[in-house]
Amino acid sequence: MITREKEPPNLEMPFSALESFVTPNERFYIRCHFPIPKINERDWRLRVGGKVARPFEVIIDDLRQMPTQTITATLECAGNSRVFLVPKVKGVQWELGAVGNAEWTGVRLRELLQRAEMANKAREIILEGADNGTIAEPPRPSGKINFARSLPVEKAMDDVLLAFAMNGEPLSAAHGFPLRAVVPGWYGMASIKWLQRIIVTDQPFNGYYQSIDYAYWRRDEAGPALVPLTTMQVKAEIARPEDNEIIRANSKYLVKGAAWTAGAIVTKVEVSCDAGKSWGEATLNGEATENAWRLWEFEWQTPSPGGYTLMARATDSRGRMQPMERDANGGTYMISHCLPIEVEVR
Amino acid sequence: MITREKEPPNLEMPFSALESFVTPNERFYIRCHFPIPKINERDWRLRVGGKVARPFEVIIDDLRQMPTQTITATLECAGNSRVFLVPKVKGVQWELGAVGNAEWTGVRLRELLQRAEMANKAREIILEGADNGTIAEPPRPSGKINFARSLPVEKAMDDVLLAFAMNGEPLSAAHGFPLRAVVPGWYGMASIKWLQRIIVTDQPFNGYYQSIDYAYWRRDEAGPALVPLTTMQVKAEIARPEDNEIIRANSKYLVKGAAWTAGAIVTKVEVSCDAGKSWGEATLNGEATENAWRLWEFEWQTPSPGGYTLMARATDSRGRMQPMERDANGGTYMISHCLPIEVEVR
Repeated sequence: MITREKEPPNLEMPFSALESFVTPNERFYIRCHFPIPKINERDWRLRVGGKVARPFEVIIDDLRQMPTQTITATLECAGNSRVFLVPKVKGVQWELGAVGNAEWTGVRLRELLQRAEMANKAREIILEGADNGTIAEPPRPSGKINFARSLPVEKAMDDVLLAFAMNGEPLSAAHGFPLRAVVPGWYGMASIKWLQRIIVTDQPFNGYYQSIDYAYWRRDEAGPALVPLTTMQVKAEIARPEDNEIIRANSKYLVKGAAWTAGAIVTKVEVSCDAGKSWGEATLNGEATENAWRLWEFEWQTPSPGGYTLMARATDSRGRMQPMERDANGGTYMISHCLPIEVEVR
Repeated sequence: MITREKEPPNLEMPFSALESFVTPNERFYIRCHFPIPKINERDWRLRVGGKVARPFEVIIDDLRQMPTQTITATLECAGNSRVFLVPKVKGVQWELGAVGNAEWTGVRLRELLQRAEMANKAREIILEGADNGTIAEPPRPSGKINFARSLPVEKAMDDVLLAFAMNGEPLSAAHGFPLRAVVPGWYGMASIKWLQRIIVTDQPFNGYYQSIDYAYWRRDEAGPALVPLTTMQVKAEIARPEDNEIIRANSKYLVKGAAWTAGAIVTKVEVSCDAGKSWGEATLNGEATENAWRLWEFEWQTPSPGGYTLMARATDSRGRMQPMERDANGGTYMISHCLPIEVEVR
C-alpha cells in the first residue's frame, strides 16, 4: 500500500497490483478524516431517530440476527486521481488506487427506516460516524464535528446496505468496525464508516462534508450552485503499464485495468496508445454487475522505441463516455477525464 | 468616509459622524464585490422568469409608473465590526460604520411576482445583480459569476422593496443604479444592487454568496450545518466617544449611538462604562419603526483619570439581548456581541 498520510491513515493500493475482480481487504484503500475511533463492540449502539414515529437503538447482535444481504460494490474516493490535476490542488494526492471492489454483507438500511416509521415529510437520511475532530481551515465550524453525510430518502430506501462484513470477514477498524454504510454507485464519502446515528430529517442537510467539503459547482440557470457530490462518474483506469514503465519495443504487451460507473454497466472500454489520436476496443472480462467495476484488457502491439502516452476511455449503458478534458467545475473532485499514462518503449 | 478597499470600492462611515436618524447618501456605506457595473438606463432591463406562468421584462420607466412605496430601513453589512475580532479573520476590516438607515422608494417585489404568476411549487426567489467577476480563492466556481442571493417566497411576498430612490434621490452608481432590492431586517448582502434578474425556483438556491460566502454554521441535531445569513442580530453601537478618545475627568459626557434589530423594535439600550460590570439605561430617541434603527444617548458622569472601557447593549421587543461574548459559529459574520470602546479620561 502507498501511504499518503500517516495520521489519520490514508492509504491507497498501488493500482498496478490490480489482479482480481474482488479487491483483497489488505489492498483496499483507507480514507480517514479523523483518527480511527476506538470502538468496543459491547458498548457500541446504533441510534435511529429524528422525524420518525418510533426512535430506537440496536446493538450489533440485533443486526447480525436480521436477514442479511451480500452485494458487490465498487467504492471510489471522490478525490481519486487528484495527483493528475495541474496545477496541483489541495487535498490528499491520490494516484489511481483510491478505489476498490468488495463483497459487502449486512442489512438493508430500509429495514431500519421501516421499523422506525419515518414521517411522511421525511426528505433526507443523515448518517453519522463515530469519527470526529476539529477542522483547521476556514470556512469551518467551531468545535468538534462528526463525519456525517445525508442521502435522499429514495436512495436510502433503495439499495443502501449497512455492512458488518467485507469479503466475508468482519470489518477491520480502518474500514469502519463494527458497522459501515455502503452506498452503491456513490463516491466513497457517502459510505459512512463507524456508523453510530441515523437521523431522519425533513430539511436538506448542509453539514461540513456536503458543503465545504465533498461538494462541487453545478451550473444552473442562476449561475453555479454548490451541490453535494453523489454518484461516481464513468471511468476506466489503466493498471498496467504503470506510469513511467519501460516496455519492450516491437512486441506484445497486455494493457490491463478496471472500469466503473453508477446506476448502469460499463459497455465499452477503449484504449489509446497515442495520447488519444486513435482508439482500439478492449476486451471486457466477466459478467457486468451494476455498481461493481469490470476488469478489461487490451493487447498492444508495441511500436518502435520512443515515449508514448496511453489512455483508457469507458462508455456505459446510458451512453456516458469519459471526457478528454477536465471539467473545472468539479473543483478538486470527480477526476474522471482520460488520464495519461506515460511509458517508454525501448 | 473611510476607504477599506479602493477597487472595487468599499467604504464605511466614520461612525462617530452619526448625527441623524436618516443617514445622508454621501455617508452611507458602500459594499462592492466586483467593479461597479456601468449601466445605461435606456439599455437596462429587469427580467422576471423561472417557475412562473408569464415571464416578462420591464424597463425602469415601467417601474416608476407603478404604485410606489417609501420605507425606512437600516442596512448593515454582515461583516460590520469585523475589525473587533481577535484573532483577525479574513474579509474587509470594517469598524462600526458599515451600517446606515435610509428612506427607500420603489415598488414591492410581490407586485412583479404576482404579475408573473408564480408556480405553486415556488420556494425561493433568486435576485441577481449585474455585478460580476471571478473568485480567486477556493472553494470557488470556475469562470465569471454574478452576485446573487435568494429569499424564501414568504419574505419576497411580504415587505421586500425594489428601490430606485434613496432618501428622495435616484440611486447613485455605487448604491445600485438604476434598481436595487431592499430586504428589511436582513443583512445588506440580501439587498441586491444593480438588479437585473428575478428567478423563481422550486429548489433551495446554493450559489456562492449563500454557501461559501455569507453563510454561517448553525448547530443542529446532526451537528453544524452551513446556512445562509439572513436577519440582522440585535445590536447597539456607540458613536461617541470613539475608540481611544480623550475625555475630561469629573464632568458630563453624552454617550451616543444607534441600535437596531430585525422583525422587532429595540426596547432598551444599556451602557456600561466599566467593561460590563455595571449598566445604566440609555434614553431612546424618537418613535420605534420595525427594521429601522433607533438613536439613543446616555449621560456619563465621568470619573477620575484613567483608562475606561465603554459598552452598549440592546434588547428588543422579542426579548433578545446582545451577548457579551462572541459566538464563534458566526465565523466572520454577525458580529453583534458587546463591542468595547476604550477611552482615556484625563
